[in-house]
Formats: sequence, structure tokens, C-alpha cells
Amino acid sequence: MNLVERSAQQCAGEFAAVRGSAPASLDAFARAVLGTVAEPGDGVLGRVIAAIGSAATAEALLAGASAERLAGEVGAAGGDLDEREAQSGLARWRPRLDHADFVRSLTQAARVGARLMVPDDAWWPSGVDELGAHAPIVLWVRGRPDALDRSVPPIALVGARAATGYGEHVAMESSAGLVDRGFAIVSGGAYGIDGMAHRAALASDGTTIAFLAGGVDRFYPLGHESLLSRIAQTGAVVSELPCGAAPTKWRFLQRNRLIAAASEATVVLEAGIRSGSLNTAGHAAALGRPLGAVPGPVTSPASAGCHRLLREFDAVCVVDADQMAELAGRVSRQNAKQGERDAHDESGGPRRGNAADSTRAGRSVGDDPDAIRVLDAMSTRRPRDLPEVARRAGLTVIEVMAALGRLEAEGVVERRPEGWVRRRAG
Amino acid sequence: MNLVERSAQQCAGEFAAVRGSAPASLDAFARAVLGTVAEPGDGVLGRVIAAIGSAATAEALLAGASAERLAGEVGAAGGDLDEREAQSGLARWRPRLDHADFVRSLTQAARVGARLMVPDDAWWPSGVDELGAHAPIVLWVRGRPDALDRSVPPIALVGARAATGYGEHVAMESSAGLVDRGFAIVSGGAYGIDGMAHRAALASDGTTIAFLAGGVDRFYPLGHESLLSRIAQTGAVVSELPCGAAPTKWRFLQRNRLIAAASEATVVLEAGIRSGSLNTAGHAAALGRPLGAVPGPVTSPASAGCHRLLREFDAVCVVDADQMAELAGRVSRQNAKQGERDAHDESGGPRRGNAADSTRAGRSVGDDPDAIRVLDAMSTRRPRDLPEVARRAGLTVIEVMAALGRLEAEGVVERRPEGWVRRRAG
Repeated sequence: MNLVERSAQQCAGEFAAVRGSAPASLDAFARAVLGTVAEPGDGVLGRVIAAIGSAATAEALLAGASAERLAGEVGAAGGDLDEREAQSGLARWRPRLDHADFVRSLTQAARVGARLMVPDDAWWPSGVDELGAHAPIVLWVRGRPDALDRSVPPIALVGARAATGYGEHVAMESSAGLVDRGFAIVSGGAYGIDGMAHRAALASDGTTIAFLAGGVDRFYPLGHESLLSRIAQTGAVVSELPCGAAPTKWRFLQRNRLIAAASEATVVLEAGIRSGSLNTAGHAAALGRPLGAVPGPVTSPASAGCHRLLREFDAVCVVDADQMAELAGRVSRQNAKQGERDAHDESGGPRRGNAADSTRAGRSVGDDPDAIRVLDAMSTRRPRDLPEVARRAGLTVIEVMAALGRLEAEGVVERRPEGWVRRRAG
Repeated sequence: MNLVERSAQQCAGEFAAVRGSAPASLDAFARAVLGTVAEPGDGVLGRVIAAIGSAATAEALLAGASAERLAGEVGAAGGDLDEREAQSGLARWRPRLDHADFVRSLTQAARVGARLMVPDDAWWPSGVDELGAHAPIVLWVRGRPDALDRSVPPIALVGARAATGYGEHVAMESSAGLVDRGFAIVSGGAYGIDGMAHRAALASDGTTIAFLAGGVDRFYPLGHESLLSRIAQTGAVVSELPCGAAPTKWRFLQRNRLIAAASEATVVLEAGIRSGSLNTAGHAAALGRPLGAVPGPVTSPASAGCHRLLREFDAVCVVDADQMAELAGRVSRQNAKQGERDAHDESGGPRRGNAADSTRAGRSVGDDPDAIRVLDAMSTRRPRDLPEVARRAGLTVIEVMAALGRLEAEGVVERRPEGWVRRRAG
């Protein structure tokens, strides 16, 4: 029996409690251990696990393997890790190995009903795997783990804590509208925009998911304790940190990458120029995920971050839930019919115009140049004959006849014995 | 003496009055005549003039040349015009040839002090020539023709007649700010945004130019008669239509192409989803000119057109005069120093981010990941030793020492006999 197996046996009861009906797995146990030794997003640990698996990684740590040996094992498995990286990894992971701490964290998780999720689990959100070596090692979930399933497509609605009435209004409308269109609302559980997005989703009986920067045993911020409890009842409160872990600035920044990676699109609803939600937006863009920003008054500093995203980071301007749904590559229910073909042709990416399209901007259906000029040349009172209309319109008589034919069919002009007149509107 | 020469002699006095000190030119006279026979933007006439010159074109018209002959002449000169096009062109131009009408129009122009400009004139706005066959044949100007000179770079500020207080505020700030940055303000003289842009430019002692859809003898709209008179005193009121010509829908749409073509950039300040200013924006985009749009509240229908431009037509989001000046490829005075190098590197186009840049979004200067984690791991009250900080930060002792060195240099942390502490902010 190796050290990981022995450790698993020592806290089998506590571990079983946080895995629910999931099959017993040494790999899951090893991941739970590894999730406590590194800060979120530790790419070196990610590469070691990818190469030799989580059980062997944990075993090497517990057994006090040398850097040389770890680098060798990773290299033999086809991975890439030099001895210096191994040395520095071991130097930062080892001081955190603490069996008593680990058991305390499991016990606390079991007490609050948190479940441990690992990549092979059915409801593991596959989107986070696109983070590669920086993907989370485990996820701790309070609530319904299946809320993370992509059968209800998740969309991230984020924004500043310092929200205005405008921003809160937009958050409420957007969140409720996206729930109506079949989306799950992902956010960060913070005051301001995040909180409003979660609340509106709950009010619409939708699924909403909050990613926290600390352990899910402590709901942060404190003022959102009851909100987060309600989220956990029908949706999920999620963190990659073990129970007992405090939220730190680094963990907030890393938490933001999970919000972006777990969602099909990220929309920033209202954000000042220094809002943390711009960091989430940056992660979405770096992952190549659709990024939207809701504009606001240019006189409002609370929208300056959104405008910066539109201006410098090629975010798509979105003004309502329909456009947000389109951004996420889903055709909204209302527009399902006419949108069906486009969805197939356009592979779900955000639609952007190009210069050639731009002449459409001023045109509405039926804006035929000749018809405009013929109508310009006609009177509603004084009938005019064809040559007269042609001269005034600067068109040939033939062109005028063709245009009048179309306009007559639309009931816009009328032929009288003395000539043609334009009908009054309405 | 051919027919154009004879006609020029018959109204030599009237013509001299509208040409001021410009040298007598048969070409200019022929253009004045041709400017009355076609509607704005007649591409066939533009191609004929480009091939055989304006005097020969006018002569062919006055002499009643056949379509076969006109097409032959154009072909011989290396131009491209088939007989059917010649036929239809002649059929729409000939009915408008009217010597008495023409003289009346010249007399009226002279009476209101309007000057005739043709492409070879010193102050002809070269930007409109990029319209190719659709370029204006002449321009009628009331005011200072040199206002059209690009030595004061022109920027178009346009928007809806149905403006809100927000839109008018933005128009006023933008126009005044751009005047301060050395721009001339081009607009359409309409109620709402256009009028506000003109007024603010006048109030800042700036140059402003109004393009009209009808003859410059009648200031339209009527309620802007005194505003347009004031514009003509220091700037210019311009039209391609001869005096006496009424503004029609077609002429408004064609006038919009002149606003876009005569300006280095076009900015839509506030526009509903059906605003005519979107047509101006479409022309700017079709010409490959920088196009900007000012966002507004998504709850305001008066900004819906601007949001459409941002979303579908790749307009650049601009929130103040600085960004509008940058859009037009000029570095604003305030930012001249730091902007100087960029201006050389970036060839004046609008700056757009790409996905790789996007990680900048959440970063401010000095956002060093290790420093963030070390600060997270420190207390302002309880001193901690290096291994303790390293374990909490999930970093090696070496990494923590390096980060502490930088943070100590910045005065953010402090070394005490018992260990390291974080300094309180401020």
C-alpha cells in the first residue's frame, strides 16, 4: 500500500461524505490532496498531473521525492518539466502538506454539504478544461452539481460592485431575459451587478451559479450569505479552494478565470475603468470566448470600463438579452425561425459587419433609389404627367414608368386622368 | 464658337459674379451647366465628364448629340460607357436643359453671395473626389470657401433631429472639445444634434461647415435660418445643388455622402434606429473613413442607432473629444507628447485591440502575480517569517524573498525583528 492509499484509508469516512454517490477513486482523493497544496492556476502542478496523473503526483509529494526524480518521472511519461521547475514546485507545495488540516477541511465540507467534483465526474464543466495546465484540479460545490451541466447553457453576467441604478436595472432585465431564453446565469456573488444578476435569475426560477474566491463553507461577502444560500438551493455555489480557505486578491483574480471558462460567453453589464470584472473579460477574450459589453451614458464613470472593452478589446456591443443570447451562439426563442439558417452558416461566433455591409446602415426595405426620386418629384395635390415627373426626378420616362408601376402596386401613388399624384400617408 | 462658349458669353456677367476672383474658365462654366441637369451622385454623368471633360460633355448635350456619338466619344477617350447608358443618360439630362432657369439660378446665387467651386479650385475639398464617378460636379458655397481647406482638419459630427438632453450635452462637449483640438466641425444643419454641434463650434470661435440638401439660397430648415447665417459668417454653408433647388429625400441621402467624404472621420453622437445619420455613417464606412459612435443608455431609443453601428458596422466606440480626435488620426494637444511615437507607428488608423492584448484589461502597472500573492499572505499586525509567508502564498521562499525585495523598495511592506508585515495603506 503506497502513501496515498494509506492516507485515503485514514480519512475514508470524511472523504466518502464529500463524494456522495460517486464511485470510490484514488484519483479523486489524490486531487483533493493536491487541491490544497497549490494556489489556483499553478501551471507547473497542472503539467505534472497531466503527465503522470494525480495519484502519482500526490505519491511523489507525500514520499518526499526529489526534484530530479519528479522531473524524470514527468519526462518519462512524455511531459515537459525541467529540474528547476520541479525544485521550485516542490518547495512551494510541500510546506502545505498537512494531514490534520486536510481532514479538518473535509470534515467542514461534509458539515456544510459541499461535494467534491473532479474532471471525470458527469457534471464537471468541460469548459474549464480549456484552461489547460491552469485548469482547476478540483471543484467544491454546494447545491446541485448538475447545475454546471452545459445542457442549460451557462452565460456569465458580471460587473462592478459600485453599480448605479442604471446598471442594476440592466442586470435585472438581462438576467431575467436570459433565463427566459434558457440560459443559466454565472456570476461572482459580489455586491452590485453580480448580486443583481443572481437575484433576478432566482426571481425568474432560473438556474444561477456563483463562483467564490474562498472555500464554499464561508459565504463571502457576508451580506450575501442568504443570497448565496438561496443560490445553493436551486443552483450551485462553486470554488476550487478547499473549505477553510480565505478569499485573497490572487484567488479573486483566479476565480475570474473560472467564471469566464465555465461560460459560453461573458457579458460585462456595468463597470468602472478599474473594475475587477474587466479581469474576467480579459480571461474570456484570452480563451477566445465571446465577450460582450453593455454601453451606458458616456457621462457615467460607472460605464467607462464597458466602453473601454468596446473600444480597445473588441467586445461586442450588446443592449438586451436577445443580443446576449446571440453572442453566446444560441438563437433566442423569439427569433428561432428566421435565425435557424444563420445559426448553421455562422458557426455560432459573434456577428460583425464589415465595410461592404455598411451601406445597409441607412437602408430600410424598399428603399429603391428610383422610387425615392420619383416620390420626391410628385405632389399630393397637383397631378403631373410622365415627362414632368421624369424631368423633376432627373430620370428617364422609362425609369419613371417602372418606378410608378411598383409604387402604384404598393398604393403609394395614384393615376388620375390629368396625371399622377402621390397619395397622402395614412 | 461652339454652343458652350456662346452660352457662357450670354450670361458672362452673372457667371463672373459667382466666380469672384477665380480665373475665367470654360470648364467651370460647363460644370455649372452640368450641375443643373443631373441629380446628385449621377455616376453615368461622372464617367462621361471623367472621360471627355466637362466642356465636351456640355457641348454634346447642348448640341443634341446622339447616344451612339456620345458613347463613341467616351470610348475614344478611353472611358467606359455603352450606348444604352448614354441613351438613358441623355434622356434624363436633356429635359432639364433650360437656359432661362440656369440664368435665374446664377442671378439668385450672386444675389445671396454664393460662390461656385469646381475641382481645380484651391479650396476644393479633395476628400469628395474619393467618391469617384459619384463625386459632386460643383459645390456652391456661402461663407468662406477656405473653410473647406484641410489645413483645419474637418470632422463630421452628426445625429438625430429627435435628440435628448443627453445627446445635446454630448454634442456640445464633443464639438467644443474638437474645436479646442484644432478641428473644423462638419454637419448637416438640421435640428437636434447637428444644430447643437454647429452652435457649440460657433460658441468656441471654431470653424463649422453645414452641407445642405437644397440650394444655398434657401436656408433649410427654416428655424435654422439665423444659425446658418452665422455659420456662413465665419465658416461655410455648402451644397452641390444650384440655387433654387428644393431639398428632397434623395438629395438628403446624397448630401450625407458629401458630409462623410469631406471629413476625415464621421462620429454619430446620438441616433435612433431609423435616423438619417446612419446613412451618413454608411457612406463613411463605404469610403473606408474612420467611423465612430457615442454610446448611450441602452434604455434610450435615441441611442439605439449608435449601438447598432457599434454592433453591426464595426464603428469605434468614442466617449469624448480626445477619442474622436484620435479616431480622425490626429493626436490631441493634451496627449501630444506621449502620443507622438504611436502616431508614427500606427499610421493614424483607429486602434483596435486583439485577443492577445485582452489580458491587459484587468492589469494595472505593477500587477505582479507573485507580489499579489505575497501581499495576500501578509498581515498588517502580525509579523510573519519567510517560510510562513511562502506557505500561505503557495510560493517558494526564494520567490517570496524576491517579491518582498520589490515590495520593500515600494514601501508597501516592512521588515521587523520578528518578521515581515504589510504596511497599512496611506
